[in-house]
Amino acid sequence: MQFAVIGGDARQIWLARELAADGHTVRLFGFDKCEGDGPRPEKTIAKAVGMADVVILPFPSQNEQGWLNAPFAAEQISPEEVLDAVPKTALVVAGRVLPELAQMAKERKLELIDYGLREELSILNAIPSAEGAIQICMEETPFTIHGASILVMGFGRIGKVLSNILHHMGAKVTVSARKASDLAWIEAMGYTAIHSRELAGHLGGFQVIFNTVPATLLTKPLLEEISDDCLIIDLASRPGGVDFEAAAKLSKRVIWALSLPGKVAPATAGHIIKTTVYNIIKEREEEP
Amino acid sequence: MQFAVIGGDARQIWLARELAADGHTVRLFGFDKCEGDGPRPEKTIAKAVGMADVVILPFPSQNEQGWLNAPFAAEQISPEEVLDAVPKTALVVAGRVLPELAQMAKERKLELIDYGLREELSILNAIPSAEGAIQICMEETPFTIHGASILVMGFGRIGKVLSNILHHMGAKVTVSARKASDLAWIEAMGYTAIHSRELAGHLGGFQVIFNTVPATLLTKPLLEEISDDCLIIDLASRPGGVDFEAAAKLSKRVIWALSLPGKVAPATAGHIIKTTVYNIIKEREEEP
Amino acid sequence: MQFAVIGGDARQIWLARELAADGHTVRLFGFDKCEGDGPRPEKTIAKAVGMADVVILPFPSQNEQGWLNAPFAAEQISPEEVLDAVPKTALVVAGRVLPELAQMAKERKLELIDYGLREELSILNAIPSAEGAIQICMEETPFTIHGASILVMGFGRIGKVLSNILHHMGAKVTVSARKASDLAWIEAMGYTAIHSRELAGHLGGFQVIFNTVPATLLTKPLLEEISDDCLIIDLASRPGGVDFEAAAKLSKRVIWALSLPGKVAPATAGHIIKTTVYNIIKEREEEP
Amino acid sequence: MQFAVIGGDARQIWLARELAADGHTVRLFGFDKCEGDGPRPEKTIAKAVGMADVVILPFPSQNEQGWLNAPFAAEQISPEEVLDAVPKTALVVAGRVLPELAQMAKERKLELIDYGLREELSILNAIPSAEGAIQICMEETPFTIHGASILVMGFGRIGKVLSNILHHMGAKVTVSARKASDLAWIEAMGYTAIHSRELAGHLGGFQVIFNTVPATLLTKPLLEEISDDCLIIDLASRPGGVDFEAAAKLSKRVIWALSLPGKVAPATAGHIIKTTVYNIIKEREEEP
Repeated sequence: MQFAVIGGDARQIWLARELAADGHTVRLFGFDKCEGDGPRPEKTIAKAVGMADVVILPFPSQNEQGWLNAPFAAEQISPEEVLDAVPKTALVVAGRVLPELAQMAKERKLELIDYGLREELSILNAIPSAEGAIQICMEETPFTIHGASILVMGFGRIGKVLSNILHHMGAKVTVSARKASDLAWIEAMGYTAIHSRELAGHLGGFQVIFNTVPATLLTKPLLEEISDDCLIIDLASRPGGVDFEAAAKLSKRVIWALSLPGKVAPATAGHIIKTTVYNIIKEREEEP
Repeated sequence: MQFAVIGGDARQIWLARELAADGHTVRLFGFDKCEGDGPRPEKTIAKAVGMADVVILPFPSQNEQGWLNAPFAAEQISPEEVLDAVPKTALVVAGRVLPELAQMAKERKLELIDYGLREELSILNAIPSAEGAIQICMEETPFTIHGASILVMGFGRIGKVLSNILHHMGAKVTVSARKASDLAWIEAMGYTAIHSRELAGHLGGFQVIFNTVPATLLTKPLLEEISDDCLIIDLASRPGGVDFEAAAKLSKRVIWALSLPGKVAPATAGHIIKTTVYNIIKEREEEP
Repeated sequence: MQFAVIGGDARQIWLARELAADGHTVRLFGFDKCEGDGPRPEKTIAKAVGMADVVILPFPSQNEQGWLNAPFAAEQISPEEVLDAVPKTALVVAGRVLPELAQMAKERKLELIDYGLREELSILNAIPSAEGAIQICMEETPFTIHGASILVMGFGRIGKVLSNILHHMGAKVTVSARKASDLAWIEAMGYTAIHSRELAGHLGGFQVIFNTVPATLLTKPLLEEISDDCLIIDLASRPGGVDFEAAAKLSKRVIWALSLPGKVAPATAGHIIKTTVYNIIKEREEEP
Repeated sequence: MQFAVIGGDARQIWLARELAADGHTVRLFGFDKCEGDGPRPEKTIAKAVGMADVVILPFPSQNEQGWLNAPFAAEQISPEEVLDAVPKTALVVAGRVLPELAQMAKERKLELIDYGLREELSILNAIPSAEGAIQICMEETPFTIHGASILVMGFGRIGKVLSNILHHMGAKVTVSARKASDLAWIEAMGYTAIHSRELAGHLGGFQVIFNTVPATLLTKPLLEEISDDCLIIDLASRPGGVDFEAAAKLSKRVIWALSLPGKVAPATAGHIIKTTVYNIIKEREEEP
């Protein structure tokens, strides 16, 4: 198959490399600043996408100004310009598609699928997120994870993977959740379960707290209980799970760590995008 | 609180013992044939349930003839008779409530909650189910689980717990599932993932196959591939996951193992019912 | 190569089957009572061993009367008679060689190596031993291993493997040992460590106790502390680790489980003997 | 008890803090440059050690010039001067005692015990060493440990702990060793075993290689096989396990990581020294 990889960060470079290794033709655009021995970018958008069966846009697809998210590109890339060059028969995939971009594709009668919405991508990304969180914890604490008293707030994808690794590294893991079924799973996995509503009065003994819930659960009264030596690592997307202002006033140590997969493990993150794109292509072929 | 435990198997005896150990008053009925040193059963239904805050019926609540499921009772117990004696203020809980029983409770204006429908019960019961399945496997095979090539079909509650234990015992675990998200989780947990549709051609090497999916997945063509030495343990409720007739003709070794928690770990199963009943009571109190 | 497998239990049959599957010629003697589809035994000892490069005797090699340990043989087999028929160039291997047998081999100028003394055999056998102990525990207790409070006495090979499996099945594992280095390892593995000398006063809470130490550690005063519901599984060879008389008087539940590999996993145990014999042959070839 | 902690790095500060938290009197010397809220150092050596029951010297005890190893001290500290001030009844403990220092103690009739030689210290230190090695691996590779093909060379203390953590993080772990018993343990733990002599021809597929053996195993011919993308982390003390010159010429990525416990987890490393010193004191009291 013919793939075009247009813009994106290091993940997309690894993705392109893997696609090529799988025997596909891969054309790149928007990687002028890259060095190394991967496939060379094309000179024009048209050359990159003109013959593509599948066009892969970045994750997230656009930057804050609405340009294509292409940190390695010499110049800003307009998403319209890319879409204009895409053959009508091609499939376009992109990560985290905003309504604007969806509209652009619709106007051009292009099929656009958001791989950022695929559950297998979120699940597999939980692994680099969890490992990245553990790396930060290792870098920022003077003790080992083995033997440490650690709270993981939330039992979604990252919470599940993170508590599993910590448990097997020998930490004393407590996980907080809200649903009776989650609390049952937490117990079944051998961790200590605590209801999210009942955290008050139980936070004093933790050496590390990882938050994975995108809601301000760590409010001032809870922060006050937390030991000054405790490291809080917040993995939740905006607005995060910590009252950062209160935490600052109380001199609590908080690290807000976002978008870890692309930062700590771009090769793995690129591989995960590839797996997801392959799944999308396969399911599309199987449809009647 | 005052509890009445009416009928049921060994699980309910352990349940009653634990309720008493937690400081509650517990009255029993329907355990005439039991020996041992647990709480003594009452002489009449009225004495057992007359002052109860919570009446606990068995799991499943009725036997095939519609009587209360009370294998230790000297005589058959009529569910109507029990419900007639329940105070209007009491909560009645039962496992796997049939429409008939629900109707009886409704007519008597009694609140009846099915603890068999609670997800935490199903999750926690996956542990004794999985351990029971492993016990059968150990008893029936001449090799260790360590090093064995094992297929787990299905990644629901039992599939998740079972594959986790087998993996940590050193088996080479493959899990089949249908959803892309399940396949991603299987990979994330470190097992080999295979799509349920793609089992054909891959079954010859397994030494043990556990099925957890209640649909006849192991049809004649698949059974033909399976080694004669392979042990198939079917954990799925009716109709089971194996074409038993074809398996018999092909002389494949199939064990259909149902209702394991009550059989292999009644104390744990009773404890799980207690936890679930406590959750029901707590949530009811918290409601406005 | 040409192998002769003379006597022994189900392990040796699996061993013979594996040797044949590896492409060797295998001749059997002493398996008259066996059914099934393995290699057929020879009619005479001479036919079985006459052309052998390696003669494999059982584990243990002799029964209590001094005959070759051959439970499947129609008649008693004399070890002298076997050794008399062995070619001078052959290697004889046997499990647990008594001085008498060693002397017989010496008189006949035969090279005899005791595979029962090989450390890799003992290590690998710890796996079926541990799994067998867990199977007994599952069969004999009304609760799951998950969540159970379990003491493992001793941190030798079986203690190491057993505590590792129990820990990963979700038990609360305490391990007792005597050496500071063992206690450090126990802690490093995430179990609770207790000095063997300090068991008194700490035994009341255990639901299962596995002993692996061949010395009477569980004396009357300690047994008195142990709960009546607790199951004691003694895996230690003679004299065992329990004062059995005191235990009987105190009505404690003790199961003395010996020689588990051959009983619960003869195929695995046979495979382990094969691995060990191959190692012996290889090291012998490498010697100058 | 009265402790004197004289010199050393961050570990000794955490050690002093823990001793104080356990209720002991702790006097410090050689920590002038430290900030923070720990116990304040004394003005003179005499004040620090004059009333001590136990004097704790650093790990390692001396720097390359023979002074006491005291990186936080304002001025060099002479070991003789310290020993001169120690009461005759006190116990002196030190990490990695050179013959010179042993001689000094002997001349002064002081009891000097090397806690660096204690096996429990080495075992427990394997945990921060392994975690530190994993931290480096995470920092230096673009992929996750989950799913990575990793070779651990050597199955001593660090090899055991490291391979255990990597395996539970989902890496595909191969461990090389020399002894048949080690190879059996490696297999028993569920890793792939390879004999150290048979590494040639099998190194091409690894993404990370950890060496724990203090002998130059990774010679030029082996290095040539290793992928250019592979990260080699050498944890072995001098001379290390890699032909560093050849590796540099071949542009292989090698990180030589020494003394990790004190660097990545000084609090844990201090705790381990405390545990070891307590064991020394206890065993000394128990002696007749």
